[in-house]
Amino acid sequence: VIDPRDYGLDNLPFGIVSHTAGGADGRKHAAVAFEDTVVDLDCLVHDGVLDADSLLGATSLNDFLGEGLATWRAVRARLQHLLSDAATSDERAAVAKRTQPRDTVTMHLPIDVGDYVDFYSSIEHATNIGRILRPDAEPLTPNYRHIPIGYHGRSSTVVVSGTPVRRPHGQRKAPDASAPTFGPSNLLDVEIEMGWVAGAATVHGEPVPADAVREHVFGYVLLNDWSARDIQAWEYQPLGPFLAKSFATSISPWVVSLDALEPFRVAEPARDPEPLPYLRASEPWAYDVELEMLLRTERMRAQDQPPVTIARTNFRGMYWTVAQQLAHMTSNGSRIRPGDLFGTGTISGSEQGTQGSFIELTRRGAQPLALPNGETRGFLEDGDTVVIRGRAARGDKRIGFGEVVGTIVA
Amino acid sequence: VIDPRDYGLDNLPFGIVSHTAGGADGRKHAAVAFEDTVVDLDCLVHDGVLDADSLLGATSLNDFLGEGLATWRAVRARLQHLLSDAATSDERAAVAKRTQPRDTVTMHLPIDVGDYVDFYSSIEHATNIGRILRPDAEPLTPNYRHIPIGYHGRSSTVVVSGTPVRRPHGQRKAPDASAPTFGPSNLLDVEIEMGWVAGAATVHGEPVPADAVREHVFGYVLLNDWSARDIQAWEYQPLGPFLAKSFATSISPWVVSLDALEPFRVAEPARDPEPLPYLRASEPWAYDVELEMLLRTERMRAQDQPPVTIARTNFRGMYWTVAQQLAHMTSNGSRIRPGDLFGTGTISGSEQGTQGSFIELTRRGAQPLALPNGETRGFLEDGDTVVIRGRAARGDKRIGFGEVVGTIVA
Repeated sequence: VIDPRDYGLDNLPFGIVSHTAGGADGRKHAAVAFEDTVVDLDCLVHDGVLDADSLLGATSLNDFLGEGLATWRAVRARLQHLLSDAATSDERAAVAKRTQPRDTVTMHLPIDVGDYVDFYSSIEHATNIGRILRPDAEPLTPNYRHIPIGYHGRSSTVVVSGTPVRRPHGQRKAPDASAPTFGPSNLLDVEIEMGWVAGAATVHGEPVPADAVREHVFGYVLLNDWSARDIQAWEYQPLGPFLAKSFATSISPWVVSLDALEPFRVAEPARDPEPLPYLRASEPWAYDVELEMLLRTERMRAQDQPPVTIARTNFRGMYWTVAQQLAHMTSNGSRIRPGDLFGTGTISGSEQGTQGSFIELTRRGAQPLALPNGETRGFLEDGDTVVIRGRAARGDKRIGFGEVVGTIVA
Repeated sequence: VIDPRDYGLDNLPFGIVSHTAGGADGRKHAAVAFEDTVVDLDCLVHDGVLDADSLLGATSLNDFLGEGLATWRAVRARLQHLLSDAATSDERAAVAKRTQPRDTVTMHLPIDVGDYVDFYSSIEHATNIGRILRPDAEPLTPNYRHIPIGYHGRSSTVVVSGTPVRRPHGQRKAPDASAPTFGPSNLLDVEIEMGWVAGAATVHGEPVPADAVREHVFGYVLLNDWSARDIQAWEYQPLGPFLAKSFATSISPWVVSLDALEPFRVAEPARDPEPLPYLRASEPWAYDVELEMLLRTERMRAQDQPPVTIARTNFRGMYWTVAQQLAHMTSNGSRIRPGDLFGTGTISGSEQGTQGSFIELTRRGAQPLALPNGETRGFLEDGDTVVIRGRAARGDKRIGFGEVVGTIVA
């Protein structure tokens, strides 16, 4: 389903694959996606065609991410040469030997996630949620326009796209009930997010300026922050979301580098008041990335109906950028390790159909979505499959993030 | 400063040491503390004296923790034999060869922390904090007596006892100020906690019952959850504490096993209402552990004055136990990995001098502590050293946790 043009020479996203075709050993190897193929970087390093020791024998990209910008750029430039018309016939043959069709490999988590942080950087999302959950109060908390609000999530349950998502059990309490009950979540939701993957490590005790993005951020994935709204509503005071989120977080398997994203970097939205000095970068760090969420129910699958689009939004409008998130995260001396994952927070617009979650799209289930086959959805049912896709296009440049997919199981 | 009797045959806590005495290579080795010595387990396995492959070459205890209860008990029993009067003279010689004075080794983090969770399980602490921060409201949130409240913290900044703690910078806003400012925290605090270290892994998607403690929990350390109260007050709504906590979390270097703690397991406090069925265990899981916090300022050090005790409390009164925390944490299918760390939450009593934090001891600085040399403390100053000690004694049984120490640097 992924257009080969999304993974062209301008993209070359990195991932971890395994395959057994042609007598391969089924072990994890680092790779890049190129059009409808996968190029095995572990083998290219082994063959002496590519110089990148941190990719040799790697079962995650972490060591490579820890090398920093100069290494990433050298590897990217070498791969762009090897895959271009400028490659010699020997080089072409060497690469062809280590290339498989993309649909023959199994994708794995591209990173070993040390710490996972989830931000809350869409002001439209924060406003939508505030209006739904606290209708009689100011929708934004007083700190919203000053702080890139975030919290730590669970790294052990970050899973790669395609992993089934088991409906979580937990405590939930109806507003009029005297006590909570325990059972399967009845308000299972998604959140359309992107996630940035940390590059070079920072030092414990040493804050990093907002302008240090290119060294400490390698690239982006798509992220689905599955959320159990009934569990969340009952548990989240006073210390924030916990089990409502920690059952699963899905990411797309291919990490798109900042260099690949560079043509799509755009001006940031206006902010008022101006952020404090430590949150100011000298360049804009918004990205024009189109995002789409699709739903396919079990009945649609049985009826052979394709997934239906239920939301379209864009990453460019986020109130807080990666530069501000990086500076804020390290402002207290906290350290970042290669492979750390940072969710952007739900990416929502203010208009109907541009919101990144069911709780917003359906007003907490009060206005269910009507699907083409007559089904309705306030929240997710067992057997529902959610697909989030991302793509950027500008002039003759085009890249894709592929997709992050998950199906709910009972 | 640690009494050799705290690390007797009944204790044998596990840790990671390095040493260069006698031509040793300075690499990390697994070890147990015994009286005033350290016994090198890596070498004992290498020598064929101890059978525990997961300790050979280990730079953390994680692989050993992943082995589960049967392995832990076999290793413990073998070590108790080797270090007892029942050992043969050959065995004694073999152990003596791998034993150093405790004060000659460097201690390291005993675990690679995958995920770090901090609970909030002392109802006295939650009540004290609620009264201080929300004087006009009910001190406990409605969920407190139903849920072992917790949140995820940052694993990359968990440090071993002795690591200096740099005063964090961050945003804070005075109640009467129109906007926040950025700078060093003015309300730097501690939290006396214990932390449990996860043993055998659980499976993603599969909840673990409260009675499974012995397989999935290896043991306990002391934990100091350093906290910047001014940063916390401004940032924590709506998603909980973040940078106010993530700058550092200190733990004691020796992990005391549940088997060593067994003689000190006592009845749990009364709970009303009765917890939901998934939070009920068939045995009591409170522990009678005495905790003490001491303070030594820079001036006290210059004047050669010893640390002064500023709080004494006991672990036995916690509202929520390790069994309930384990069952709750996994109730949504979230998985636990060996070496995951779970803080208990601040351990406080209700009487003056039994609280585990400055914010409680000094009523948020309004009633500063008077120190013997005439200094006062509302919160921590640069150069202050905080020591937390823990010990359990009952009949002829006695074990110690040693201490967790940290000094504030500017």
